[in-house]
Amino acid sequence: MPKDVAELCALFDLTATGRLSFRGPQPRTLLQRLFGGQVLGQTLVAAAQTVPRGRLVHSLNAYFLRPGAIDTPLDFDVEVMRDGHTFSNRRVMARQGETVIFEMTVSFQEPEPGLEHSAAPPVGVAVPEACPSLPEVLERRFGRQIHMISEWDALDVRLAALPNADRQGGSMRAWVRTKQPMPDDPLLHAAVLAYLSDITLLSVTTVPHEVEFMSPSLQAASIDHAMWFHRPVRVDEWLLYDMISPSASSARGFAMGRLFQADVAVASCAQEGLIRVIGDC
Amino acid sequence: MPKDVAELCALFDLTATGRLSFRGPQPRTLLQRLFGGQVLGQTLVAAAQTVPRGRLVHSLNAYFLRPGAIDTPLDFDVEVMRDGHTFSNRRVMARQGETVIFEMTVSFQEPEPGLEHSAAPPVGVAVPEACPSLPEVLERRFGRQIHMISEWDALDVRLAALPNADRQGGSMRAWVRTKQPMPDDPLLHAAVLAYLSDITLLSVTTVPHEVEFMSPSLQAASIDHAMWFHRPVRVDEWLLYDMISPSASSARGFAMGRLFQADVAVASCAQEGLIRVIGDC
Repeated sequence: MPKDVAELCALFDLTATGRLSFRGPQPRTLLQRLFGGQVLGQTLVAAAQTVPRGRLVHSLNAYFLRPGAIDTPLDFDVEVMRDGHTFSNRRVMARQGETVIFEMTVSFQEPEPGLEHSAAPPVGVAVPEACPSLPEVLERRFGRQIHMISEWDALDVRLAALPNADRQGGSMRAWVRTKQPMPDDPLLHAAVLAYLSDITLLSVTTVPHEVEFMSPSLQAASIDHAMWFHRPVRVDEWLLYDMISPSASSARGFAMGRLFQADVAVASCAQEGLIRVIGDC
Repeated sequence: MPKDVAELCALFDLTATGRLSFRGPQPRTLLQRLFGGQVLGQTLVAAAQTVPRGRLVHSLNAYFLRPGAIDTPLDFDVEVMRDGHTFSNRRVMARQGETVIFEMTVSFQEPEPGLEHSAAPPVGVAVPEACPSLPEVLERRFGRQIHMISEWDALDVRLAALPNADRQGGSMRAWVRTKQPMPDDPLLHAAVLAYLSDITLLSVTTVPHEVEFMSPSLQAASIDHAMWFHRPVRVDEWLLYDMISPSASSARGFAMGRLFQADVAVASCAQEGLIRVIGDC
């Protein structure tokens, strides 16, 4: 429940427990199980500790294997897959005791010049200052504060386009940044980007349906999460997160997200999650 | 170089070498290194051999770690990550001798009813019969047959929209199916879908640029490949493959693809590859 940037950054301050093993701090939390974005960011940081200096993360792929307990230390075991001339690949297992809850493969690269292009961001998006915050939107919708939303108090999240069912399946747009300035470390910005990418993405998969994402009649859980980091990013400046859900079927919802900053694509995400309707309440 | 469906299917007829290990047949090939789509499909089939009956692949994430030799047997070692009530997760390492060339995580699920939606396919796409085949397009462009293109002779690939630089970055559309009917096995259809998804996807990343994808001045190689299988698919019926490249930077090109059949989304793909300009020829 990091309430500000200092507490958010502290999440990613891992303790080395061996040459290739690390332990992450557990925050106080309002959630009943570990927040996936925390596990994503911490695992990325663990992998990065073992990589030659100057190599930056450019992609990661992860599976959430079991729910994480909020009161048990989380340990990261890094496996060196490859150190090439310009790329380094790592695999990390995150476990609580002997139970593996999460598995991630990560790739790092020494930056080099090359071909450059970027998709254009969506047009006609209202400026962040004109958009309602996520807590405001939820309060309007549910007539009350959703208390767990303060879990993400370190971030300013504004809905730039309300959830919408359209030709793309479902869609949603948000502006996101940290509420305070961040240190300059690019790894920390990448870790927070992974963290924040997991907050709203899966919820777009229920947009075309009557069931509310936060309803107790929906069992929702991330299955996987993939990210590609296209360019350096600052998470303390506004990011436009453009999300769509091209498909839901067999109790699984699939979503893709594009992150833009200063009119260029800085990252892309994809996530599948369980969205199982379990009752009629 | 599977010339027809019989030879294509034979690629995926692995030999068990242990309870969790398999060996794949190596086809004659015109390529200088193993085709990524072959490795993807074979690895998926290896994982599937170890999963409870009735569970179908719904996603995979893979990294290409080293180029594969065309004249050395390819072995697959499967690791059981989890067998849950409805999901099974596997990790597979593909190696030649002691050299790991490829790593994949795969998730399988027992199908269940649930929320259903699908993005709409693009509009205004010409029917396959009106679209030029990939060999025809390449012959027009280069004034000659590209001999390696017969590597994919088992497939009918037609360009539904020529490569185009636009707001999405770069884009391209193709119709794809096998030239002959396939057996009914859903796993074989998923394996061929993985195989065919790797043929054209990376090439869209150079569409906004002057350098030709098949030029000797470009060093091109897949880095990763991710797929989400939304619905049952038949690869012997027309698939519309809608590809975009939202970004290129630091000698890496990123592409996403959507596969439609009978007007619904059947799969989504994402791939990053090295696209390094190495000369001015």
